[in-house]
Amino acid sequence: MARIGIIGSNGRMGRAIALALANAGEDLAGGVGRDGNVAALAAEADVLIDFSSPAALEANLDAAVAAGVPIVIGTTGLEERHHWLIDEASAAIPVLQTGNTSLGVTLLAHLVREAASRLGDDWDIEIVETHHRMKVDAPSGTALLLGEAGAKARGVTLADVADRGRDGITGKRESGHIGFAALRGGSVAGDHTVHFLGDDERIALSHMAENRSIFAKGAVKAAQWLLGKDAGRYTMPQVLGL
Amino acid sequence: MARIGIIGSNGRMGRAIALALANAGEDLAGGVGRDGNVAALAAEADVLIDFSSPAALEANLDAAVAAGVPIVIGTTGLEERHHWLIDEASAAIPVLQTGNTSLGVTLLAHLVREAASRLGDDWDIEIVETHHRMKVDAPSGTALLLGEAGAKARGVTLADVADRGRDGITGKRESGHIGFAALRGGSVAGDHTVHFLGDDERIALSHMAENRSIFAKGAVKAAQWLLGKDAGRYTMPQVLGL
Amino acid sequence: MARIGIIGSNGRMGRAIALALANAGEDLAGGVGRDGNVAALAAEADVLIDFSSPAALEANLDAAVAAGVPIVIGTTGLEERHHWLIDEASAAIPVLQTGNTSLGVTLLAHLVREAASRLGDDWDIEIVETHHRMKVDAPSGTALLLGEAGAKARGVTLADVADRGRDGITGKRESGHIGFAALRGGSVAGDHTVHFLGDDERIALSHMAENRSIFAKGAVKAAQWLLGKDAGRYTMPQVLGL
Amino acid sequence: MARIGIIGSNGRMGRAIALALANAGEDLAGGVGRDGNVAALAAEADVLIDFSSPAALEANLDAAVAAGVPIVIGTTGLEERHHWLIDEASAAIPVLQTGNTSLGVTLLAHLVREAASRLGDDWDIEIVETHHRMKVDAPSGTALLLGEAGAKARGVTLADVADRGRDGITGKRESGHIGFAALRGGSVAGDHTVHFLGDDERIALSHMAENRSIFAKGAVKAAQWLLGKDAGRYTMPQVLGL
Repeated sequence: MARIGIIGSNGRMGRAIALALANAGEDLAGGVGRDGNVAALAAEADVLIDFSSPAALEANLDAAVAAGVPIVIGTTGLEERHHWLIDEASAAIPVLQTGNTSLGVTLLAHLVREAASRLGDDWDIEIVETHHRMKVDAPSGTALLLGEAGAKARGVTLADVADRGRDGITGKRESGHIGFAALRGGSVAGDHTVHFLGDDERIALSHMAENRSIFAKGAVKAAQWLLGKDAGRYTMPQVLGL
Repeated sequence: MARIGIIGSNGRMGRAIALALANAGEDLAGGVGRDGNVAALAAEADVLIDFSSPAALEANLDAAVAAGVPIVIGTTGLEERHHWLIDEASAAIPVLQTGNTSLGVTLLAHLVREAASRLGDDWDIEIVETHHRMKVDAPSGTALLLGEAGAKARGVTLADVADRGRDGITGKRESGHIGFAALRGGSVAGDHTVHFLGDDERIALSHMAENRSIFAKGAVKAAQWLLGKDAGRYTMPQVLGL
Repeated sequence: MARIGIIGSNGRMGRAIALALANAGEDLAGGVGRDGNVAALAAEADVLIDFSSPAALEANLDAAVAAGVPIVIGTTGLEERHHWLIDEASAAIPVLQTGNTSLGVTLLAHLVREAASRLGDDWDIEIVETHHRMKVDAPSGTALLLGEAGAKARGVTLADVADRGRDGITGKRESGHIGFAALRGGSVAGDHTVHFLGDDERIALSHMAENRSIFAKGAVKAAQWLLGKDAGRYTMPQVLGL
Repeated sequence: MARIGIIGSNGRMGRAIALALANAGEDLAGGVGRDGNVAALAAEADVLIDFSSPAALEANLDAAVAAGVPIVIGTTGLEERHHWLIDEASAAIPVLQTGNTSLGVTLLAHLVREAASRLGDDWDIEIVETHHRMKVDAPSGTALLLGEAGAKARGVTLADVADRGRDGITGKRESGHIGFAALRGGSVAGDHTVHFLGDDERIALSHMAENRSIFAKGAVKAAQWLLGKDAGRYTMPQVLGL
């Protein structure tokens, strides 16, 4: 059995992963909180899962590279410089970074790509997500991942076409743009809907997480898949063979 | 039959009202576009319906007061100073201003008030609306009207608790706030949902307009109701006896 | 602290209630499975909660009456003869029977009554619910409860107007009827939506349970409320002061 | 310009097609009501569109074959023997039969196939549709078309796994089945949602028609595509190159 080390094990996701590991019969190699000793954890683990924070990413990647162990990055709120760090680390070890570790969301992104590539710009793409009241960033990493899927299928760069935080006198909607909206409240584990709004008809593709266990199950599945891979940067669709 | 004068008769709503009037067998007293002669229209009408623009509001109210005819204001995007003008005019004539003239939305606002007054602040209120790609303002007047219903039921001022244009690092949601999100695209006539997001359960109250005819029918109904009323400021719930 | 006895404590709801009681700091008086000794449990408890089965209802009511303890009945799938038994028992002890013990659903039923009493028969009522793949009856007790709320508001008997299991050549929909549809699958804890479908517009009122804890919390709240009441038959809206 | 003959031109769809043809600049070759002379219409048309009724299908196909003109069949409520008639006619002329002529629904069926082929039987498929109060059959032809897409992707026959008209004591859901539910009311042009309900997560793929114009536009597009094709039986996905 693989020893899986959890970075950020005191957070919501960390505890959910520990539970998923117990259910899957995998061995848990320690696990550290936000200020724990990641190097020591990496030395004992066969693979790492990181759900800590963007601020901790660089140190976590350094520890994984130093120990030569693969790492799954599920942290959200990453910026461009974080992605450079990940690219750099992936020259030395296998790294899988994803805004969402669930099987269902990974499939949804595939369907969004499929739909966006068949429907012209006269179908407006709007992405709305709902999360619990404790979430601190908007839109969610998953919403952005879905937006990327739509943008890539249309051959555009998401940053060029993203309409975020729509409020006030916005003027009429620009063709080809992708809108984002974020709802926050209650204990919602995570709802995402991608709307394709056309003339006189609409298509909506959505995913609902009933609780966080699916992210943990997916992260464990990704960690197992990453074992024994060559150095490089991998994605969730590869885990599922999409 | 009452002669109803439509201000803004070349716009989407203006044409829909003309159609509704024809169906209802009411007489249409002219109708002017954005730059037309409102004073002449007011002189010939028994009641006015204004779906033009905030910029035209003052002149329209002046014409209605000068002619002594009641007026229904369905224009959205009004600011505080517009409401002062309406209050002023309502000392002389009957004025009914509303963010939404439909029967269904008026009932929805009533249900939102009912729900918000029964559910504590541990149920977060989030309002999301979708409109066609040509709409230039966000959130919709109707979304704000629904937010006002929730705020009033909780004894707070909407402006103090409204979360609009949520984007970026927002921090966790503040208790008692009311969130707004706006989707734009396609030919959507108008969807509104008020979510009450609690611990482990959710309530959602929603309205969908399949096309614009409902707003026109409601505006005509309001205009007929306004005939013969005393000077004063009236609301849609009064039309429906809520 | 009240001692609460759970009948059907080995089922899904029984275990959820035991957890809710532990969280609420209430004392758990035993608890029996389907074939346990209810009389012994009743003798030790201050109040009973029954989530067992329709077949066990008569014996459970007898035990509660013999011991003189109040009882909350959350069992679904009851038929008319079960309601007669409940009426009979409520001459001797306080009994609260409900198709759904959650606060949110109880409020939803109130909103349905409110909407149905304001909207005419030209707004068609359709109720759709979704539950996990293990549920054996359709429509859910909660869907029927919501249908009753709508029927009562319109002054009709639900059995006279219920359209259930719509399939095949049905002919056009009859005015004033209330339709029911049931979806089954996955691990869905319970979604219910009451649609009011009018000409060119729709209102939808919905409730979603993210997990079963809300039913348990509501059942415990109802049990506490029932303590010390006079003999009689009570309802969830009374618990909430609606 | 092609001369398109509409069979069933007095019905809702017939009139919508006439409007779509006018908008598309196509020539309308007559058009007959339910009891009209189809043979005369066929003689004058380059292609036929049939939205009349199952009872009229045989005579309509005969007329098309006699005149040697292609025919698009959009009639719903067909039974097995109707499909035999269509197969027979397609030996002589090009025939395109579909439960739904819209572009959006055709794409939705493609996405359903894609999702069903990736997700195992532990994801339960449930299909729910809503139509206006005048619709006489349930489930809709489109719902069945979507069910066929799911069944085909799983390598099963829809008739073997369809759960229709769920009501009463049904027992727990059988793995691998596909459920259907039908809502009826108001003026709903047509909503369809295919749910994939898994353990702790759900995917929903949906289409909404805001009005009937999309079916008419799609039927005209299919008719144009069918012109000049060899004899044979064709499908909507072929029209869209899926």
